[in-house]
Amino acid sequence: MAFTEWAGVCAQLARHTESKAGRLAAQAMTPSCEAAEVRALQDTTREAQALLARDACCEMRSLSDLVDLYARASEQGRPLSARELVGVAQTIRLGDRAAEAFASSPRLSALVAREAEVVSVQTELADLIEASVGPYGQVLDTASELLGRLRSEIASQRVSLDAELSQLCQNGSLMLALVQHRPVEREGTPCLLVKQGELGRVPGPIVDRQPEGFYVHPDALAGSYNVLRDLLIAAEEEALRISDALSARAMGLRVDLERLAAGLIAADLHQAMARYGQDAEGVLVEASEDASLLLRGALHPILARQGECVPLDLELGSDSRLLMISGPNGGGKTAAMKTLGLTALLTQCGCPVPVQSGRLPVYRAFACVAEARSSVGAGVSTFQAHARDLAAALEGARPGALVLLDEIGVGTDPGEAAALAQAFLELLLERELRILATTHLGPLKRFAQEEPRCQNAAVSLDGEGRPTFALLLGQSGRSYALEVVRQAGLPDSLIQRAAELHRGEG
Amino acid sequence: MAFTEWAGVCAQLARHTESKAGRLAAQAMTPSCEAAEVRALQDTTREAQALLARDACCEMRSLSDLVDLYARASEQGRPLSARELVGVAQTIRLGDRAAEAFASSPRLSALVAREAEVVSVQTELADLIEASVGPYGQVLDTASELLGRLRSEIASQRVSLDAELSQLCQNGSLMLALVQHRPVEREGTPCLLVKQGELGRVPGPIVDRQPEGFYVHPDALAGSYNVLRDLLIAAEEEALRISDALSARAMGLRVDLERLAAGLIAADLHQAMARYGQDAEGVLVEASEDASLLLRGALHPILARQGECVPLDLELGSDSRLLMISGPNGGGKTAAMKTLGLTALLTQCGCPVPVQSGRLPVYRAFACVAEARSSVGAGVSTFQAHARDLAAALEGARPGALVLLDEIGVGTDPGEAAALAQAFLELLLERELRILATTHLGPLKRFAQEEPRCQNAAVSLDGEGRPTFALLLGQSGRSYALEVVRQAGLPDSLIQRAAELHRGEG
Repeated sequence: MAFTEWAGVCAQLARHTESKAGRLAAQAMTPSCEAAEVRALQDTTREAQALLARDACCEMRSLSDLVDLYARASEQGRPLSARELVGVAQTIRLGDRAAEAFASSPRLSALVAREAEVVSVQTELADLIEASVGPYGQVLDTASELLGRLRSEIASQRVSLDAELSQLCQNGSLMLALVQHRPVEREGTPCLLVKQGELGRVPGPIVDRQPEGFYVHPDALAGSYNVLRDLLIAAEEEALRISDALSARAMGLRVDLERLAAGLIAADLHQAMARYGQDAEGVLVEASEDASLLLRGALHPILARQGECVPLDLELGSDSRLLMISGPNGGGKTAAMKTLGLTALLTQCGCPVPVQSGRLPVYRAFACVAEARSSVGAGVSTFQAHARDLAAALEGARPGALVLLDEIGVGTDPGEAAALAQAFLELLLERELRILATTHLGPLKRFAQEEPRCQNAAVSLDGEGRPTFALLLGQSGRSYALEVVRQAGLPDSLIQRAAELHRGEG
Repeated sequence: MAFTEWAGVCAQLARHTESKAGRLAAQAMTPSCEAAEVRALQDTTREAQALLARDACCEMRSLSDLVDLYARASEQGRPLSARELVGVAQTIRLGDRAAEAFASSPRLSALVAREAEVVSVQTELADLIEASVGPYGQVLDTASELLGRLRSEIASQRVSLDAELSQLCQNGSLMLALVQHRPVEREGTPCLLVKQGELGRVPGPIVDRQPEGFYVHPDALAGSYNVLRDLLIAAEEEALRISDALSARAMGLRVDLERLAAGLIAADLHQAMARYGQDAEGVLVEASEDASLLLRGALHPILARQGECVPLDLELGSDSRLLMISGPNGGGKTAAMKTLGLTALLTQCGCPVPVQSGRLPVYRAFACVAEARSSVGAGVSTFQAHARDLAAALEGARPGALVLLDEIGVGTDPGEAAALAQAFLELLLERELRILATTHLGPLKRFAQEEPRCQNAAVSLDGEGRPTFALLLGQSGRSYALEVVRQAGLPDSLIQRAAELHRGEG
């Protein structure tokens, strides 16, 4: 979604998820554009809110994204690793716990529902995995008789090799060549650590080279090393045989396991929405049947908790297609626009929003043109970037969409800008859209006043030149640029001269 | 320097330095504002260019920033560490090599010049450090007789402790408690690795706890461990005594060593400038005696190597205080402004710039107002940010400064914007400044035409609506916003309607 600040809202929701997969899902969240689906999503969140209220949410930390896990293994044409199998088993166990936790929550339950037969084969797989693989992904000695025997032979062989090496270290001429006069572990085998320039005294394969010296398997013990190596290879092969057999079983259950994981990820997301709602003191906003809109005390979803955010009240009839907001710089035009956009997006994801009360249409799409950014490197000026954003918005403005346009036409000749903006709005008004736009251009304010499908609204300053952040419907507002500039610290003499020039006294 | 894209230019130069200290110096580079100093910096770079041409630059990789190194040690109230002493010795050796490499380069030589007596005490210090500390910062066995003896006793004690542990491992009941039936190295000492839940069988201090088990020093060998521990502590203390003694000597030479390091860093930077100049096919631009300016074929310093950059030609007399650039969006107004600003900044650092020929005044300061950025979180709108930038520029616009103003007044009511911009420019014109500004506002183009200290310039489009990037002095330019919008992909019908509206036919 190329929508200003939406990524920030998703990131905030992601912080309330518990699993990595849930976090990624929150970051990639997209709204539903069907009223029935939005209501169903909200009902699911309502169940999560009820669980949260009695501190009975299902803990999701051990959830693995099995869809991604299977996809990566398939892509690389390899079986699941022992560590990945642990994730499979943990997700199956989590499915059992979730089914229990959601017992009295029908919609959450439906997300993780499995037929009895599916539960039974999945449980069997989890039992097998847990019997053979430890929690860190190590295949256990007890996984097969052969593996147990090989591991114990490896242990004895290490002890005897170590003793042989220790004895070798007592050899007088060899001692001078060693950095440490004892066997040193390297690459999983005991070695001798030989000084730079002394390799001639300790012939044998070099296992590793470090600033402190060379790690060597001395040729004198080649026979013992070969025995150890063969044992290690045999144990490695047996461990792989065991995990590959488990992987084959897990692959056979792929479809059902992916479905289970997807349901658990969705449940993690709904529980995160409930937590976000609690945090932001949010409510689930009703989806209205028509295009009418009512928001009371709506806060910007990211700024709600920061306390410095002034609530927005906004009411639009279903026949009003374009709201044109004007008024002083810094008066909250852009903030009002973003608050509506983000509130609608979150609502259509089924998420509570920091609003006192209200109802919103279910928009069929979202388009947004905000601050454009130039790139001298790519040869794109600010206005060219703005023009491209306009073209993209026109593309995305399907019937039923919400279109937000911040300072349409900014960054060029004001006369051309106003003409362009009006022509653009006329085109959009032919479609069944809802548009919120901001402007400083007089011709656009007049256009909005004369055009029956449009409405003006103004933000304003109080008696002392401070913004009130209130949105006054039916009026257009002045920009008060000189007032803003005065507050930014430019000298009074300059402001007075500018005011003279503006009154035509220059 | 709060100057658009200057950080990017510095980063590009930093990539041509060889030492970390040189890289940081390039990133924090600031221009000189004195003509004599600028010429001296350029002469030094010229020497580096001559060295580069015969592939005879001094290699700077081993340079340590001794100023920073001493400062951190002093701040933390501690002596220099053995590793830091290695940096001191390497920098002294580098000073010798640099003096040799710069023998026929008087200005570079002056950067690293030391009196014979200073060279002699520094060399003595480097000899001492190298005799006692290895290249990785380890104090060498040969650093003192005591240290050598302690290290050899530690080695024997390890061997005997290891043998005792190996014997202990053969103990039947203890064997069951062990994960590995051999001594295991941990925290620099041989340990036994004991299974979870079996600690009762192997009493003794726990050195480390890991998923695989507990690393234990068994009480049965407490006596041997105590001997080893005392030896390790004694060796550690002796090593510290040695490096502290060296640190005291190095502290005594602090002032001269910091001066040497600073000179080497400057030399690294001048060599980097020579390499950048070679890369960008740059020249050292002459510092003119008055405020007149001539640039032929100037490329944007970052884009020069990318090939898509159109060269700028610009000539301004010493009596012209303000150049007002207008013309189509995307026609190169901002690029021209940035090219002049960055070219002047680099020149005043003594660096070659990608220009065919020219001369530039030495500006006494730099101020820049470009694309402002809103922050809904901080409650700052785009125009408020712009107003603050204007206030900061007014502050920084000392006599003799170069002031760049991109789309002054953008983002509010155009009438107020033009009045504000004119009042702002009138104020700046009272000061002895050079100003480059861009605009789309008609009243400002007229102001520049009527005001004797100002000059208009225009970028323009060719017959097919593509920008020529040429700067035409003495003319103002139209914005051609509708043409830009057409090229961005908006439909022709929309452009035609906007053109009608603009002609007043709406």
